[in-house]
Amino acid sequence: MKKFHLTAGPSELYFTVEQHIQQALKENVAVVSHRSKAFQDMFGFTTSQVREMLNVPDNYYMVFTGSATEVWERLAQNCISKKSTHFVNGSFSTRFHQFAEAWGHQTQKIEKELGEGFNTNDFQIDTDSDFIAITQNETSTGVQFPLEDIYKIREEHPDKLIAIDAVSSIPFVDIDLTKVDSMYFSVQKGMGMPAGLGVWLFNERCLERAKSLKANGRLLGGYHDMFTLLKNAEKNMTPATPNAIGIYLLGKVSEDLLRRKMEIVRSETVYKAGMLYAAIEEHKDLDYAVKEERVRSKTVIVIEILNGRSPKDFMSYLEGNGLVISSGYGPNKATQVRISNFPTHSKELYFQLIDLINAW
Amino acid sequence: MKKFHLTAGPSELYFTVEQHIQQALKENVAVVSHRSKAFQDMFGFTTSQVREMLNVPDNYYMVFTGSATEVWERLAQNCISKKSTHFVNGSFSTRFHQFAEAWGHQTQKIEKELGEGFNTNDFQIDTDSDFIAITQNETSTGVQFPLEDIYKIREEHPDKLIAIDAVSSIPFVDIDLTKVDSMYFSVQKGMGMPAGLGVWLFNERCLERAKSLKANGRLLGGYHDMFTLLKNAEKNMTPATPNAIGIYLLGKVSEDLLRRKMEIVRSETVYKAGMLYAAIEEHKDLDYAVKEERVRSKTVIVIEILNGRSPKDFMSYLEGNGLVISSGYGPNKATQVRISNFPTHSKELYFQLIDLINAW
Repeated sequence: MKKFHLTAGPSELYFTVEQHIQQALKENVAVVSHRSKAFQDMFGFTTSQVREMLNVPDNYYMVFTGSATEVWERLAQNCISKKSTHFVNGSFSTRFHQFAEAWGHQTQKIEKELGEGFNTNDFQIDTDSDFIAITQNETSTGVQFPLEDIYKIREEHPDKLIAIDAVSSIPFVDIDLTKVDSMYFSVQKGMGMPAGLGVWLFNERCLERAKSLKANGRLLGGYHDMFTLLKNAEKNMTPATPNAIGIYLLGKVSEDLLRRKMEIVRSETVYKAGMLYAAIEEHKDLDYAVKEERVRSKTVIVIEILNGRSPKDFMSYLEGNGLVISSGYGPNKATQVRISNFPTHSKELYFQLIDLINAW
Repeated sequence: MKKFHLTAGPSELYFTVEQHIQQALKENVAVVSHRSKAFQDMFGFTTSQVREMLNVPDNYYMVFTGSATEVWERLAQNCISKKSTHFVNGSFSTRFHQFAEAWGHQTQKIEKELGEGFNTNDFQIDTDSDFIAITQNETSTGVQFPLEDIYKIREEHPDKLIAIDAVSSIPFVDIDLTKVDSMYFSVQKGMGMPAGLGVWLFNERCLERAKSLKANGRLLGGYHDMFTLLKNAEKNMTPATPNAIGIYLLGKVSEDLLRRKMEIVRSETVYKAGMLYAAIEEHKDLDYAVKEERVRSKTVIVIEILNGRSPKDFMSYLEGNGLVISSGYGPNKATQVRISNFPTHSKELYFQLIDLINAW
C-alpha cells in the first residue's frame, strides 16, 4: 500500500517531483558543470520562479545554502551585530537562539510556553538589540506569528534587522517582504521537495550590516559568507558544486504552483485547515493544541489527544489506513500529534483523513 | 544523441544511479523523517559500505557535509590550531590555503607551478605548523601527490595532523588511513553521483585537537562543528534535515563498486589511463600537461594541445561525437583540456575516446 505522508518534517513529495527528477536526469542537470551556461540558465529560471511565487522585491538578493539550519549560522555570522532578540516558543526558535549565543552575541529571549503565541502588548524589545529573529511558523508546536504583528514590530523598530524563519509556512505565507529584511526556508516541507537545499532571501540592509561588520574585522564565515554567496549568485552560480537537482526542482515546483495560481494554493490551504480544525472541534477525544485562534497555524496542525486515549494509537490507526503523520515534538510526544497541510496534500486526501478521524 | 561526460567537475553519473533514484523514490527515502529508524538504517548502511570500500579504520569517524568545500571551512575551524602548511599547485589547494588565512591562522605555503608536483627533498615543513593540507589529486592540473610521499611526511612529522583532499581520486586512491588523520571528498566526481554531499572522515587525533581548541574558547562553528556532527552521526543521524537521497545513493553506489571489487575498479582505472596516455604520446599534436610521470594523475588526465591547434576545436570535435570533456583550468584554458577517468567511464567508452583522438 502506498503511504501518504502528512508529516511535519520532510513531507510527501509534490506530485510532480518524480516526473521532474526523470526530466532532470534526461537533461543531465546533475552532470553538466556548475560553471556552464546550462547551469546558469537553470539557476536563473529557478530564481525567477521563486521571485514570482513569493513576490520578492527587486532589492532582495536570493542565495542557496545546504539547509535552513545553515542560514541560522550565516545570519549569526553576517547580520547580528552585537545583540539579537529571539521569540522563543518551540524547538526551532530555541535553536536559532542557541546559535546566536554560540556565536558570542548578546541575546534577548522573549519566551512563551509551548503552544502559546506572542502578543505585541506583552513584550518589550530591547532598544540595544540590532536583530530580531521571528519564527513565522513553529513546526514543533503549530504556533504561527501573525503577519500584522511582524509589521507592527517593524514600524516600532525600523532600525533593527528582522529575519523571518518561514520553513514550514512557505509557500502558503504571503508576507510583504518590504516590511522585513530577510526570509529563509528549506524545501522539504511546503515545497514538497527532497531535502538538501536552503533558500535565503535578504535585502540591501542586511548586506550593509555584513559590510560594516567585515570592515570592523568580523570573520563572516568562509565559503558561504554573504559576499561569496552573492558574488556567485550574481552570475547565477554557487560557491561550491551545489545540489543542482534540488535547484532545478525548486524552479519546476514553483512553476507548477504558479500555474495553479498562488491564490488558489493559499485558499485551498485555508479550506483544508478549516475542515481539519472543524473535525477536531467535533471529536470528543481531540482538541486544538494551540488554544488561541489568531496564532494557530494553518500549515502545521497540532492536535491534543484527550480522555486518556493514546497519540500512538491514533498514529498507528491512520498509518494502517495509509496516512502517516508526525508525533508531538519533544515533551509533547505523550499527548499530541502533528499533521501538515501543504500544497501536495490534496483536498481528496484531506477528505479521507477527516473521514478516518471522524471514525476513530 | 546521448552525450557522455568525461568532465572533471561533476561527471557522468554512475550507470546505476538512475535506477537507484527510482528505488529511493519508491522507498520514500526523501519523505521519511530524518529522525526515524528507516533513516537511521539507511544512514548505517551507507557508512558501512563506504567504510568497506575505502577500508576505513575503526577509530575513524565519518560525517556528512554539504560539500568538500564545506570541509575546508570545518577543518579550519576545528582542526588547525595555530599554523597550517599547504601544498599549493592548483586552484583547489589554493582555495583551502585561502580558507585557513581567512580563519585567521598563520600559514605556510609550499608552492609549485601549475602542472608540477612536489618532491619530498625539495621542501621543509615548518616545525611550528600543526596541520598539513595535502591535495592528493589536483583536479585543476591533473597532478597527484604520491602516497609514499604522504607516508614519508607522516613519519617525519608524527605530531602534526594531516588532512587529505581526495575529491577527484576517490574511489580509485587506496590510501592507508592509519597514516593520515583526515580524508574528505565530494560525490559528484569518482562516485558518479549528483552533487550536494561531502564526506568527511577523521580520526581520534582530530577530535582531540577540536576538544582542546574548544577548551581554549575557540568557536568551532555552529551546526556543523565536529561535536554536533559526531553526536548525530553516532545515532546514524545528521544535525539538519539532510540530502537523504544523496546519502542513500552513496551507499548504493559504494555497494555496486564493492560488488565489482575494488581491485577490479582500480585496475580498470590504471588500464584506461594507460591507454589514454599512450594515445597522447603517439599523437603529434598532443602532449602530457604533467611532465613528471610519478605525479601524473590517473583519474584526471590533462592534455597539452600543441602546434597551434586549438583546445576548443578538440573539445567541439569530441562533443560532436558525443563525448564532453573539460577545458583547462583558469590560465590553462588556452592550451589544455582535462579528461576524467572515473569508474562510470567504461573501457568501451575509452576505446571510443581513443579512436576519436587518434583520428583528430
